[in-house]
Amino acid sequence: MSKNIREEGLEKPVDVAEYLFRRLYEIGVRSVHGLPGDYNLVALDYLPKAGLRWVGSVNELNAAYAADGYARIKTISALVTTFGVGELSAINGIAGAYAEHVPVVHIVGCPSTVSQRSGMLLHHTLGNGDFNVFANMSTQISCDTARLNKPSEIPFQIDNALRECWIRSRPVYLMLPTDMVKRKVEGKRLETPIDLSEPPNDGEREDYVVDVMLRALHAASNPIILVDACAVRHRVLPEVHDLVEKTRLPVFVTPMGKGAINEGHATYSGVYAGTGSHPDVAARFEASDLVLSIGALKGDFNTTGFTYRTSQLNTIDFHSDHCKVRYSEYPGVAMRGVLRKLVERVEVARLARRPSIHVANEAQKRRDPSPTVTQAWFWPRIGEFLRENDIVATETGTSNFGIWETKFPRGVTGVTQILWGSIGWSVGAAQGAALAARDAGEDRRTILFVGDGSFQLSCQEVTTMVRHKLKVTIFLIYNEGFTIERYIHGMDAEYNDIVRWKYVDVPTVFGGTDETVRKFVIKTKDELDALLSDKQFNEASGLQFVEVWIPKEDAPRALKLTVEIGAKNNAKMED
Amino acid sequence: MSKNIREEGLEKPVDVAEYLFRRLYEIGVRSVHGLPGDYNLVALDYLPKAGLRWVGSVNELNAAYAADGYARIKTISALVTTFGVGELSAINGIAGAYAEHVPVVHIVGCPSTVSQRSGMLLHHTLGNGDFNVFANMSTQISCDTARLNKPSEIPFQIDNALRECWIRSRPVYLMLPTDMVKRKVEGKRLETPIDLSEPPNDGEREDYVVDVMLRALHAASNPIILVDACAVRHRVLPEVHDLVEKTRLPVFVTPMGKGAINEGHATYSGVYAGTGSHPDVAARFEASDLVLSIGALKGDFNTTGFTYRTSQLNTIDFHSDHCKVRYSEYPGVAMRGVLRKLVERVEVARLARRPSIHVANEAQKRRDPSPTVTQAWFWPRIGEFLRENDIVATETGTSNFGIWETKFPRGVTGVTQILWGSIGWSVGAAQGAALAARDAGEDRRTILFVGDGSFQLSCQEVTTMVRHKLKVTIFLIYNEGFTIERYIHGMDAEYNDIVRWKYVDVPTVFGGTDETVRKFVIKTKDELDALLSDKQFNEASGLQFVEVWIPKEDAPRALKLTVEIGAKNNAKMED
Repeated sequence: MSKNIREEGLEKPVDVAEYLFRRLYEIGVRSVHGLPGDYNLVALDYLPKAGLRWVGSVNELNAAYAADGYARIKTISALVTTFGVGELSAINGIAGAYAEHVPVVHIVGCPSTVSQRSGMLLHHTLGNGDFNVFANMSTQISCDTARLNKPSEIPFQIDNALRECWIRSRPVYLMLPTDMVKRKVEGKRLETPIDLSEPPNDGEREDYVVDVMLRALHAASNPIILVDACAVRHRVLPEVHDLVEKTRLPVFVTPMGKGAINEGHATYSGVYAGTGSHPDVAARFEASDLVLSIGALKGDFNTTGFTYRTSQLNTIDFHSDHCKVRYSEYPGVAMRGVLRKLVERVEVARLARRPSIHVANEAQKRRDPSPTVTQAWFWPRIGEFLRENDIVATETGTSNFGIWETKFPRGVTGVTQILWGSIGWSVGAAQGAALAARDAGEDRRTILFVGDGSFQLSCQEVTTMVRHKLKVTIFLIYNEGFTIERYIHGMDAEYNDIVRWKYVDVPTVFGGTDETVRKFVIKTKDELDALLSDKQFNEASGLQFVEVWIPKEDAPRALKLTVEIGAKNNAKMED
Repeated sequence: MSKNIREEGLEKPVDVAEYLFRRLYEIGVRSVHGLPGDYNLVALDYLPKAGLRWVGSVNELNAAYAADGYARIKTISALVTTFGVGELSAINGIAGAYAEHVPVVHIVGCPSTVSQRSGMLLHHTLGNGDFNVFANMSTQISCDTARLNKPSEIPFQIDNALRECWIRSRPVYLMLPTDMVKRKVEGKRLETPIDLSEPPNDGEREDYVVDVMLRALHAASNPIILVDACAVRHRVLPEVHDLVEKTRLPVFVTPMGKGAINEGHATYSGVYAGTGSHPDVAARFEASDLVLSIGALKGDFNTTGFTYRTSQLNTIDFHSDHCKVRYSEYPGVAMRGVLRKLVERVEVARLARRPSIHVANEAQKRRDPSPTVTQAWFWPRIGEFLRENDIVATETGTSNFGIWETKFPRGVTGVTQILWGSIGWSVGAAQGAALAARDAGEDRRTILFVGDGSFQLSCQEVTTMVRHKLKVTIFLIYNEGFTIERYIHGMDAEYNDIVRWKYVDVPTVFGGTDETVRKFVIKTKDELDALLSDKQFNEASGLQFVEVWIPKEDAPRALKLTVEIGAKNNAKMED
């Protein structure tokens, strides 16, 4: 086939890579994470003309973490890796996005279709001629997998994958062979944006479900609202906010839902997570006879080891693909339409609105006389430091549990990975989140809380923050190793120890300068107070690195409770 | 079932973890790489009593790389990760070991069998109740996968997996649930070592093959020997050395086989890799009418893009699971027995022994008048610096190609990952190799050559070198980014640029001190000459870090040729 014949019938021929990247731009991507590799280089040339920035990540796992963080702020993201070595390095990050419902488009540059068909013994292969093995692995952690092998099908494959990624809010995998990059496809399709609208519920079914819910809600004597991760990820927060605003029912968040609700709202009542909750919060929550549970993802670390003291008899569940009223299930009825109608039809006068409780940052109350910074004091003190619209990224470990004690100002976005819990994730995620905020034209601070143990896994992502001059403040909790693991098992075990780094020097070794990076070592409460009150620190436009000393055997209350319960599960014998 | 009944019938009950770790010790493991995680912590307690050292790696990918390097020196290694997050972070490293025939025992601590059966929504899961998804991924890159769920079967599963790992010289995957760690199994089995002997060939078939080979060999007018990766990995070097010694035929190595042969041997004739070979080497090799090709792994980067100018009509192939004489195939006839008989039966007087060629480090010849360090000069100059029994690790990129120009002293082990080619691998691999040498009681220097781009991916593994006071000298080639990618595509493209780090400060930021780490910046030939001649530098017992400036557009000849040919393959259109 000659080139001309190939393009015959195309009204506006564009190259495959151009098509793909213009579609990414259209759905909101502005920066693309990833590393160069010989199977993706030619494609990378197409980024600038599609208006996309190449991030130039430092390794693929960090890049995947960053793409995850980016998508949590900018609603979707893209990652480009190379075949085999690159994509497998990233796979843990993609699996995390899958577990946590984060839409990441993973594009893998791979050997040409010719090489694949002839089973060539190329580098980055297992040497067995199997070019599908890595794509097969990725099908387990992607909601769509497309091998872009035939130009005539590629635009449909791309559009479909991007739509799936968005609608299902999970990663998709695109395998782009080197010989497809410059092939021509129909560019006229680009004139029509991809349809990202969710398929509406069947009207009659939806009305039925809403009626059932309204009856329960109007009859309840103490109804409340609980907002969890999938409300955020499946983008129903506008509906949730309207529901809260109209009903003025007490509203709680889970740890994974933290940031979904304006914590300054009059009816905001705190973080509920079963046994690990603040006792006042737990008491208020558990007094309810009807919980509107929106987007629940009831993992062990989100529920203090499955310790909710509520019954399904008192619960209405809203999910992206079904709803449930007590034990009645409504598969295929998505929450968005249901929530919208609930807002419209709820009769406020018939609601039993019982008091909310007041949530505050209890820094003063938790301040003990010793100069040592404690977990108990640190997190509410941080709550006083945060400002509206900050992005707060917390790492698995003490930070993910400590942050329960931090009351967020309005508009703060919480970025956590509580279900998947891959240590090191937050450093990449913070980079991606900060870049996404800037790409969105928002002047927000990104504040990262990460333990020293976790930081070591992914430290080089700091160089990407330097490279792009991102506005990030890193609080590194220096507590000499894996405190969360110490609580689980081996308080003094050598395997929970790490090497002491000169943490504050990391940013300058990784390309920062004394002009572009500010660094601090904080050993006492007073020092932290002074820093958090410092105007320059609060207004910084670049990278700041704060090493905060906290004793290694100190942990947030919720963490201690969670691992205590988890350890019992771990140790349970089979009989 | 009570504990007593469970143990009934066991003569010498031992805990599962003890059984596993004693077996690892028995087959040669002394240090175990990996990271702690809540699903593996209890098992880690058993390491010391089995005589095993916990390495305490910095992230799982680096740990897998290090386990790979360890196995290349100590013949086998072990890696412990935690379920989901840990194992997936390591999977690229394990895939590399699979591709390159390196035996790594990957032990994954996972949730209890009780949790698995009940499909609990635990952290480190995808949230879908599927506890097999990661094990299923690993079956693709493991020669055995065992889920250790029933105490009565576990000893057999362990013994079988370790035997497979050894015999097939590829990774195995063991999934160890938390509730199995302390279960009792029959310790009496430990009195009998695992049988690691290869099954012998059928005698008659083997004799037949040897006869065919001998006829060809005795009739050849210009026979030679070529030694490749699988001769090393499948441990037939003693047989190969005897063959070389007895026949005194000219012997060549491939890039992946480099280090297999004493390069000071009278008949050693250089590195053969098709077009990329030194012209004299290629001419001598291609004049042969019979190549005894031992353990070939003919990947593109091992053959300068498949450019051998030899015919299968002139080739005898020796493999771990079959042999081939010209086009006659002998499946199931393993090379070891065949090689042994060849050595016994070859009639030296009947061999046509044509001259070998002389291989030397051509540093003087390649020295141009400019002060700049060039790739052409650097590698032979390094050849003069190396000593007997050094371990030389080279990274994918300029190092893997440059090292072709380095003549090794006797006993040098080459550590490369040419087929899989995952950038950043060598930093971990060098750490593992150095530790393995010390575990073997050998006082060897480990010399690492890594480019700045690759180093950034896995830099934190330097901290493990510091932690264990390993004897490693790192030559970091400072050439401003991904030079190998520049040659493939995008010589001046931004995506091949990286941030300039203060590389020499990395070891001290990562826990080293001015006393424990020596650092050097080398910008000229004379500076390098002086350093390489310095006694203290040569005799160093700890970590040394040398940043060597080489222009970013300079690359070894073989690399330029390989990527030129590879680019043609990449770009080939499907018609």
